[in-house]
Amino acid sequence: MQQQAYKNIVAAALAEDVGFGDRTTASIFTAQEGEGFIVTREAGVVAGLQVAAEVFAQVNPEVHFQTELADGDSIEPGDKLAFLAGPLAGILTGERVALNFLQRLSGIATATRDAVERVAGSGATVTDTRKTTPGLRVLEKYAVRAGGGENHRFNLFDMVLIKDNHIRGAGSISAAVRRVKQRCGFTVKIEVEAGTLKEVQEALQCGVDVIMLDNMRTEEMSAAVHLINKKALVEASGGITREKLAAVASTGVDLISLGYLTYAAGALDFALQIGG
Amino acid sequence: MQQQAYKNIVAAALAEDVGFGDRTTASIFTAQEGEGFIVTREAGVVAGLQVAAEVFAQVNPEVHFQTELADGDSIEPGDKLAFLAGPLAGILTGERVALNFLQRLSGIATATRDAVERVAGSGATVTDTRKTTPGLRVLEKYAVRAGGGENHRFNLFDMVLIKDNHIRGAGSISAAVRRVKQRCGFTVKIEVEAGTLKEVQEALQCGVDVIMLDNMRTEEMSAAVHLINKKALVEASGGITREKLAAVASTGVDLISLGYLTYAAGALDFALQIGG
Amino acid sequence: MQQQAYKNIVAAALAEDVGFGDRTTASIFTAQEGEGFIVTREAGVVAGLQVAAEVFAQVNPEVHFQTELADGDSIEPGDKLAFLAGPLAGILTGERVALNFLQRLSGIATATRDAVERVAGSGATVTDTRKTTPGLRVLEKYAVRAGGGENHRFNLFDMVLIKDNHIRGAGSISAAVRRVKQRCGFTVKIEVEAGTLKEVQEALQCGVDVIMLDNMRTEEMSAAVHLINKKALVEASGGITREKLAAVASTGVDLISLGYLTYAAGALDFALQIGG
Amino acid sequence: MQQQAYKNIVAAALAEDVGFGDRTTASIFTAQEGEGFIVTREAGVVAGLQVAAEVFAQVNPEVHFQTELADGDSIEPGDKLAFLAGPLAGILTGERVALNFLQRLSGIATATRDAVERVAGSGATVTDTRKTTPGLRVLEKYAVRAGGGENHRFNLFDMVLIKDNHIRGAGSISAAVRRVKQRCGFTVKIEVEAGTLKEVQEALQCGVDVIMLDNMRTEEMSAAVHLINKKALVEASGGITREKLAAVASTGVDLISLGYLTYAAGALDFALQIGG
Amino acid sequence: MQQQAYKNIVAAALAEDVGFGDRTTASIFTAQEGEGFIVTREAGVVAGLQVAAEVFAQVNPEVHFQTELADGDSIEPGDKLAFLAGPLAGILTGERVALNFLQRLSGIATATRDAVERVAGSGATVTDTRKTTPGLRVLEKYAVRAGGGENHRFNLFDMVLIKDNHIRGAGSISAAVRRVKQRCGFTVKIEVEAGTLKEVQEALQCGVDVIMLDNMRTEEMSAAVHLINKKALVEASGGITREKLAAVASTGVDLISLGYLTYAAGALDFALQIGG
Amino acid sequence: MQQQAYKNIVAAALAEDVGFGDRTTASIFTAQEGEGFIVTREAGVVAGLQVAAEVFAQVNPEVHFQTELADGDSIEPGDKLAFLAGPLAGILTGERVALNFLQRLSGIATATRDAVERVAGSGATVTDTRKTTPGLRVLEKYAVRAGGGENHRFNLFDMVLIKDNHIRGAGSISAAVRRVKQRCGFTVKIEVEAGTLKEVQEALQCGVDVIMLDNMRTEEMSAAVHLINKKALVEASGGITREKLAAVASTGVDLISLGYLTYAAGALDFALQIGG
Repeated sequence: MQQQAYKNIVAAALAEDVGFGDRTTASIFTAQEGEGFIVTREAGVVAGLQVAAEVFAQVNPEVHFQTELADGDSIEPGDKLAFLAGPLAGILTGERVALNFLQRLSGIATATRDAVERVAGSGATVTDTRKTTPGLRVLEKYAVRAGGGENHRFNLFDMVLIKDNHIRGAGSISAAVRRVKQRCGFTVKIEVEAGTLKEVQEALQCGVDVIMLDNMRTEEMSAAVHLINKKALVEASGGITREKLAAVASTGVDLISLGYLTYAAGALDFALQIGG
Repeated sequence: MQQQAYKNIVAAALAEDVGFGDRTTASIFTAQEGEGFIVTREAGVVAGLQVAAEVFAQVNPEVHFQTELADGDSIEPGDKLAFLAGPLAGILTGERVALNFLQRLSGIATATRDAVERVAGSGATVTDTRKTTPGLRVLEKYAVRAGGGENHRFNLFDMVLIKDNHIRGAGSISAAVRRVKQRCGFTVKIEVEAGTLKEVQEALQCGVDVIMLDNMRTEEMSAAVHLINKKALVEASGGITREKLAAVASTGVDLISLGYLTYAAGALDFALQIGG
Repeated sequence: MQQQAYKNIVAAALAEDVGFGDRTTASIFTAQEGEGFIVTREAGVVAGLQVAAEVFAQVNPEVHFQTELADGDSIEPGDKLAFLAGPLAGILTGERVALNFLQRLSGIATATRDAVERVAGSGATVTDTRKTTPGLRVLEKYAVRAGGGENHRFNLFDMVLIKDNHIRGAGSISAAVRRVKQRCGFTVKIEVEAGTLKEVQEALQCGVDVIMLDNMRTEEMSAAVHLINKKALVEASGGITREKLAAVASTGVDLISLGYLTYAAGALDFALQIGG
Repeated sequence: MQQQAYKNIVAAALAEDVGFGDRTTASIFTAQEGEGFIVTREAGVVAGLQVAAEVFAQVNPEVHFQTELADGDSIEPGDKLAFLAGPLAGILTGERVALNFLQRLSGIATATRDAVERVAGSGATVTDTRKTTPGLRVLEKYAVRAGGGENHRFNLFDMVLIKDNHIRGAGSISAAVRRVKQRCGFTVKIEVEAGTLKEVQEALQCGVDVIMLDNMRTEEMSAAVHLINKKALVEASGGITREKLAAVASTGVDLISLGYLTYAAGALDFALQIGG
Repeated sequence: MQQQAYKNIVAAALAEDVGFGDRTTASIFTAQEGEGFIVTREAGVVAGLQVAAEVFAQVNPEVHFQTELADGDSIEPGDKLAFLAGPLAGILTGERVALNFLQRLSGIATATRDAVERVAGSGATVTDTRKTTPGLRVLEKYAVRAGGGENHRFNLFDMVLIKDNHIRGAGSISAAVRRVKQRCGFTVKIEVEAGTLKEVQEALQCGVDVIMLDNMRTEEMSAAVHLINKKALVEASGGITREKLAAVASTGVDLISLGYLTYAAGALDFALQIGG
Repeated sequence: MQQQAYKNIVAAALAEDVGFGDRTTASIFTAQEGEGFIVTREAGVVAGLQVAAEVFAQVNPEVHFQTELADGDSIEPGDKLAFLAGPLAGILTGERVALNFLQRLSGIATATRDAVERVAGSGATVTDTRKTTPGLRVLEKYAVRAGGGENHRFNLFDMVLIKDNHIRGAGSISAAVRRVKQRCGFTVKIEVEAGTLKEVQEALQCGVDVIMLDNMRTEEMSAAVHLINKKALVEASGGITREKLAAVASTGVDLISLGYLTYAAGALDFALQIGG
């Protein structure tokens, strides 16, 4: 992930949290130096270390930040993620924002790794959705990759996804795909949402790149996979919980998209431990 | 919440999600009109309706958005939150961003209401922390209020909170409070974190506004409340789960701050139902 | 094209051209009203009328701007493109910026229409490239569509295009495609540049969506089209002038990308005629 | 040209072209290093090397960019403009944006040098107009200087230029100049557009700094120059093509303003040649 | 003054003063309506009424703001400047920012009017300098005009002013002017600072537009005016106090520039009276 | 003061003052180096040296800026504040903006020091108000601290201050305080404005943190101090001039807020002396 992608996000987060200054820290510390570690109290997968580094770089470039692990690494309680040294005021002022990013992104990476492991061996790929936190999509999608998942389309410009409301508006799947092919050009892939095998059949005949099986039961999914027969990628989507993952994967779908990776992952519990 | 507070947040979220245009919707729809409702599939408390309204206003001011409920209202599955009517393209392009805001903020309001109900009758007030999503604090703190909670300090400028690392840096609670009183001026309130009754005693003697009992057992909390004896507000903090809330509240503390309200609340499940 | 796409571009252009105020106009006019037309002195295709409207809306919302034609319409010398009425100061202050946008975008639409007509009947589609004016891509790509062309990828995130330097870096076309398929995910289309039939063959075997024939002679192109045999889209690219267009199109390629549409189109000659 | 003048322009151009990341390059390259040259395939005059340097500095500061020539230098096909070395990913991601700036600005410098040479010996100065690309004026006016031309007013605040519509609005040249002198203050120069010798005469009597001969035939221009007799600068303007330049210059005018320098110059053909 | 010129300045001032919300007003008022007047407690000249209007428009567009006087009008204690009506919360939240602008700008207009009156009849024009408040120049220069003064150059791009340090660097006035004439082009006026009659003589021979008499005694000024003899405008500058104005004006100089108009004018005393 | 707090303010000030370039300096100087001092011509207290340093760092990082004194130091005519060395063009281009900041902030620090000395020994603290220059509050409040004063609330979010219009709107002081305590939460201090002893009494009974004596005579102030008897901080406010300071302080109030510190301080007279 390039630094340009998150510099402004970090700057906005610091402006939000520091305001006109950290009154506590500025009153208590002047030139005092210190050091410490970011440690985890929970097991999981780490993500966002560069973002945490950028937080301290913006608060005070004299704070030295050194990663002890890399994004995507598994962590156990007590593991050290990064070492910090330098002006204590800078370390303490940046602490909360750095942890807020790191805990959230690691929570997403952890949930993704869990899902990836649950479908291991099936050939299915775990992907995210657009159900991300407004303003943080580039980071949250990065965390999904760090956890071993793959990114679904980034935004509404990135790929065509024809959903039920589009189909209803156009009159039929065929009509919707036809309009898209006429107007969108050759550069984008086309995915169609299908809720029944009949719709799968129609989508298949239109020649699309991906067919999304929306809220189907697993037996229907298996039938759809059989019907599609590699002529398009097959995505399972809608209400898939951790518990259902293995069953869904066993249907032979290519992709399983999981909104909960980003909207319900929760934050991992990390702490900044100062000092000697 | 004033519109100025979230206009830029909404604009950034739309830029992120729409990119150079919604390829699907723009290909399929031209002038078609439609209408629909935002409905909930889960019970909880709604928050963020103004933000959702702003999303559609920015996508296309011709989309008419009318709230059916107010922020803070309890909702049951099937309840209609808002009615939309106007150009279908605008409605569909704004759908995901509007729902992303609304579901997240309602999740926070719901978790807050749950906590508030668990401490009902105790006299304790539920508050949030600074463990919010970077960039969305103003909205998330609003959602806590919508759920019946109270806001803790907004950021590092808003109030002084002397934590263990500050105390260690200054040498003692007394030294830290002295420096803050000298340098911070009369406008801000001072809170001190105490992990033991001895520290509570020291904080009390310094004359502070709030004493935070950090990760204390409930018996210790009761003793601390007794010791403080209304000479300062008492806040319970650290690792307080939903299950422990009633017990913590019964100790007589004034405030219970809960990080999980914002970092682990999850999103409520809402949907946009178009048409007929 | 949505208004959000160009509002900021127009604001920046006005800031650049007006500075701290239009000294001439502000000195001479106060409340005087006037009206006029934007007329063309050259034949071509118009594009950018909404952008011109936005210019005057930002200069002074009391200036009334009414289009007489639509983007994509053919124009002959003397044709009226738009009618303006309102405060003369606003009309004159916005004139140059509005014309600068309109003339440039119409120049692009005109060059595109010319190219489209030269390949008419061949089945080939004319597309643009990324050789656009920095900062104006969204407008220039819109102008290409207004002229009847199709847009190639919008930017480096929009689609994968493996060029000679990528191939050399990866070692071979196959190695490059393999890496892309592993790391880029299922959402993006893949195009590969090929300079020889052997490279075409290799790209074909990798299973890519588009093969770009880079600077090939027309006989080679025909052979490549034959070889590819509809298993991928075929794009002709590199040094294709207006004169060569018909010959290139007759080879059976699907796409012809033309850098000159945007970097050498020149501006159409329009004027604002005030009054009487 | 100071770096502040183009830093934001470059940042916007990169945001536009890179989006959420260069998918191709990021998939294929990791730490690979490389080097190369920017070379020209066309003769002309180079301009914009600092801007190209800034592009790579923003993409990746580890890319080393060293100019081989200076802005304003004449170039022949095959000439090397700059040497690049460092991470290949950074070089390839920045390539298109750097070339888009460099080719366009060099095209302007080349057209300007051509015009300057055509009027050489006449004493006339070649200047640009405000017919520049929205958002790039500071760069395009710089390129005109690099080509040996002089800049006309930068924007509407920079100098007073009373045109036909102003004159008609005020009632007469004298009335317009009078109002400007009353309201604009002593800091700005005043130019008046004149289409006939009578108007030249009137402008002269008003005491203005520059008189623009608008779309006059060369004989009229000579007469105007004679009439003005050094009491004001004389500018020839309007529809002056390359072919007419020498004739216009021979009339004795001081300034010849050429819109085509910026709106029709076209881009010079440059390429980035990687490697050994 | 166009609204674009101060919209962003007002938005930044409100962000600065309101922060995350006006805690007092938001707690006390909900839908209550009210009305009131902005009145002056001091005599002077009003300036900035549009800016004050913009403040309330941004705080809450439902606040109705109606001017009772116009910028440039003389005011006496008790005069009503503007009438406000609408939601009390909006009126009170915007009060301080609106008054901060209005009082400061009126202070400048008042000081300017005073200076203009002191030189009345002499033919001298009062002008400002670049000693303005960072970020507010466009407003402060407007206030000078409202008070009857004229604006000196707006910024370093607006006009050439060769000062002692430039002269020393170039070697002589002549050398400095020569370089400027070579490199700056025909669009800008040239002023030279002269501290002695010898320097005045040298500047005159170079052919410049304005000669600034820097910190001269009034007898020297008279001699300089005599020497220059209308061949350039003459500006008196440097340490001119209110008391010296009449004497300086009587020397025959054309312009008197006064830094104190903007850096020491002080604010007029206005109040918002909510009403009865 | 952290650099983040003023970086954007400095950038905006330079954009305002430099525009598209310093025409004079850029014409006269190329690579010439020079050095000089910022010196004061007036006695006072210096403030803003870091801000001046930032100005030159942004104009040209090769300009070396070294402070000779520290903010808060007393200065006498002729004292050197800072030493500059490096490219002369950069030094001269940044001069005016650096001085504009430095002179204004030092003026505020000087006025504050004067006030602090006038109340010395009384136990009263001098504070500022919100009557600051729009956009510069963070700097002006810093200058007050540099002069030895303390900051009153930063903005409308920072603390509750219930003024006469709020009281009238709520019906009474008690009603206003009650609403604030219900809705504002425990984090903010509450101040109430009182114009009479009766109001002081009412405020006292509500339990507020600070009581502001608004425009009271000194005898009334003494009575109020007696009445309040340390149960709240007492602030004297409204129309307090330098002359009245000692008398006000002798009443025993804790705080004296002075609007004139920021809106009427005037600028100290500094100069940049180049060379030799």
